[in-house]
Amino acid sequence: MAAKSDQTRHRVADVALRMFRDIGFEKATMRAIAAEAGVSVGNAYYYFASKDDLVHELYLQVQGQHADRAAEAVVGFNDLSARLKATMHAGLDVMAPYHRFGADFIATAIRPASPVNPFNAESGSAREASLAIFRAAVDGARPGPPRRLRAELPGLLWLGYMGVTLFWVYDTSEGQRRTRKLVDGAAPLIARGLSLTRIPGVGRILDDAMDLGRTVRG
Amino acid sequence: MAAKSDQTRHRVADVALRMFRDIGFEKATMRAIAAEAGVSVGNAYYYFASKDDLVHELYLQVQGQHADRAAEAVVGFNDLSARLKATMHAGLDVMAPYHRFGADFIATAIRPASPVNPFNAESGSAREASLAIFRAAVDGARPGPPRRLRAELPGLLWLGYMGVTLFWVYDTSEGQRRTRKLVDGAAPLIARGLSLTRIPGVGRILDDAMDLGRTVRG
Repeated sequence: MAAKSDQTRHRVADVALRMFRDIGFEKATMRAIAAEAGVSVGNAYYYFASKDDLVHELYLQVQGQHADRAAEAVVGFNDLSARLKATMHAGLDVMAPYHRFGADFIATAIRPASPVNPFNAESGSAREASLAIFRAAVDGARPGPPRRLRAELPGLLWLGYMGVTLFWVYDTSEGQRRTRKLVDGAAPLIARGLSLTRIPGVGRILDDAMDLGRTVRG
Repeated sequence: MAAKSDQTRHRVADVALRMFRDIGFEKATMRAIAAEAGVSVGNAYYYFASKDDLVHELYLQVQGQHADRAAEAVVGFNDLSARLKATMHAGLDVMAPYHRFGADFIATAIRPASPVNPFNAESGSAREASLAIFRAAVDGARPGPPRRLRAELPGLLWLGYMGVTLFWVYDTSEGQRRTRKLVDGAAPLIARGLSLTRIPGVGRILDDAMDLGRTVRG
């Protein structure tokens, strides 16, 4: 029974994600999703209480694929710039089929009460999984980043990647090539910027900024 | 006639903003807003084609009030840190009554097609007005910011303020005091950071980052 129930859950999720991608978030109603998946509406709601839950499912799937692809993509790269580039491009590759749906995803995710909100306490495990992708990029880098930043860097990179994702949602260029350029240009700048934190004045401001971050965090 | 029509428009907008604030965005339907304003639903739609248009109206009002208050608040302050602090606190003061509505505002504004989206070409004049607030803060500062950054600084500060606004939306502390602390701490860090751009290595990275920004912009 568990196996059959799992299968149904997967089918509903797969159909929903395909419909989000192909006909858009608004038109893919729970009714339409259930019909397409060949289950009753009540059954669909049994697995996913709302479309928000389906968005959460998409978020987790995209994240899992991002982690897998990034792990492959960084193999053989030692310097942080190359590892960051590979990690961010892997994320864009995974998100690419969903570009049309990106705006709806963000409008859903940005609500403070949304289970998908990356800053929400409830989505803590999803955020942890996302942070882990950037922690892997940093941990494998040789030479390693400056010691004073090592603990905070994955979180800062993840935050920067949220910015890249927002840029990608608004990027209407073919194949979102402007976002690809942004990643190509930003990765080496980040690596260069990190080396500057060894200058005492720069390091002190950074320490103070991280203190401030810790103070104002909830 | 024009005067009467203007009056009606203002009344609908005022009622809508009060209802957004008091009962929330979802519950304040066009029907409820029209009834409260004492006009027909058709008449309300004549002035505002959708609730998005009312959100746009709120955005413009908040911005106008922010500009006025910031202009008063910076009087007598010369150093950039104090002027930035005054400017950002003025914005938070103006937004304060709408905190409950902040999440809906952002969820509406973040859609690429929304007239309220601050990154949207259509909202160009609203963005210009918002940039002007930060340009005024920078232009009046003595000593002025480093020359290499003078042109881009208002835009960067405005982008940072968008981040502060997002932080504020998620800030559930009483009176959003965590956001106030963030502003108090960030303003002097920004001023200190600017002085570091005179270090050659720092300046070069900044120049490259601004070049990248210009390259990837639409």
